[in-house]
Amino acid sequence: MDELVPGNTLITATPGEGRALAIKLARLTVKAIQPDGEVRTRLRPTYAEDADSLTAAAHAVAVEFATIAAANDYWRTGQR
Amino acid sequence: MDELVPGNTLITATPGEGRALAIKLARLTVKAIQPDGEVRTRLRPTYAEDADSLTAAAHAVAVEFATIAAANDYWRTGQR
Amino acid sequence: MDELVPGNTLITATPGEGRALAIKLARLTVKAIQPDGEVRTRLRPTYAEDADSLTAAAHAVAVEFATIAAANDYWRTGQR
Amino acid sequence: MDELVPGNTLITATPGEGRALAIKLARLTVKAIQPDGEVRTRLRPTYAEDADSLTAAAHAVAVEFATIAAANDYWRTGQR
Amino acid sequence: MDELVPGNTLITATPGEGRALAIKLARLTVKAIQPDGEVRTRLRPTYAEDADSLTAAAHAVAVEFATIAAANDYWRTGQR
Amino acid sequence: MDELVPGNTLITATPGEGRALAIKLARLTVKAIQPDGEVRTRLRPTYAEDADSLTAAAHAVAVEFATIAAANDYWRTGQR
Repeated sequence: MDELVPGNTLITATPGEGRALAIKLARLTVKAIQPDGEVRTRLRPTYAEDADSLTAAAHAVAVEFATIAAANDYWRTGQR
Repeated sequence: MDELVPGNTLITATPGEGRALAIKLARLTVKAIQPDGEVRTRLRPTYAEDADSLTAAAHAVAVEFATIAAANDYWRTGQR
Repeated sequence: MDELVPGNTLITATPGEGRALAIKLARLTVKAIQPDGEVRTRLRPTYAEDADSLTAAAHAVAVEFATIAAANDYWRTGQR
Repeated sequence: MDELVPGNTLITATPGEGRALAIKLARLTVKAIQPDGEVRTRLRPTYAEDADSLTAAAHAVAVEFATIAAANDYWRTGQR
Repeated sequence: MDELVPGNTLITATPGEGRALAIKLARLTVKAIQPDGEVRTRLRPTYAEDADSLTAAAHAVAVEFATIAAANDYWRTGQR
Repeated sequence: MDELVPGNTLITATPGEGRALAIKLARLTVKAIQPDGEVRTRLRPTYAEDADSLTAAAHAVAVEFATIAAANDYWRTGQR
């Protein structure tokens, strides 16, 4: 299941890594729904130059991050 | 109720399996609302080639995953 | 208040039943806002054949399910 | 503040009443943003006959309900 | 930071005040993104007379309120 | 990972600072998806003068803030 969750864990060392994981999870869902890399590449420019598309993506990432942050108890301990 | 929740449980062995379940749950809701497989198949290409549709789907999956992750206590113990 | 929450409880025996309740709750909200059954029936075909409408509905159901799952402590005990 | 939260409490006797409160809260927010009743009445038909508008409203109600349900500890005890 | 959170606290005496804060927080985010008051005033009529815009705003307020309600432990004690 | 979470922590001294961080996190996600600053600058005017775009952005910020607020235990203690 590594293709859906890298390393198959939600635990990360820091909030920044948790954030990177959140972005990755969202992208991997899109990849699962649209496995054709060429299509995804074709869609990217339009989407990345549309403010509302970017906001929608940022929103989805925020939802992923909420889960990852809870899983890591908000990195309250052991933080650098 | 297996047609809404495979195996009728939210418990999975790993985050990756939880993620796969999240995608499945979202699809099964769509199936419950639109039971006609031909219609769903017809809708798929348009939807899978639209960046905003993909983001919206990824967002819905993220919400499902939040529930599944909480149900599994974020796979904090017994993780591989 | 049975017309908003069937049986007036969030407790269900299994995740699958919780899922069915989530779909039902979302529909009952729509019914509360648009009580005219003829209008709802008229809207249905367009909506059920639009991928983005289906995703939006699945998203709303996911939010309902999150609440129901928490109410049932994720069916962790007493599960079949 | 009764004009934003009826009775100024989130506590209700049953899930059904909690659901009615969720619908009410969402409506009261709209009223706070658009205090002109004539405008709201004018908007209603279009909105109540658009499937996507109804889904969006149902989604917002689901979010309100999540908060109300948590406030009432999901009506786990003292339920009829 | 008073310009983002009035009084720099999420604690309010009642649910109604929490609700008013939720509306305020959402507005202050918009203000932070679009600091030009003239632009915001110009946008208001269109937005306040569009049912979907009002629903979207109500949805965002519901999310803010969820956080404020949790911060106040749902005003379970010390409520009037 | 400082480019995704400033200071690599979710802990802030006050709700207002938490709010500023929420806005920042959302912007940094957008930056991660669209690293070209010129494109982001070009998109800004359209987006900041569209009421629905502003509401959508405020919604995403509200989701980020929910996580940050939980991480800080809602700033219940040690508040100024």
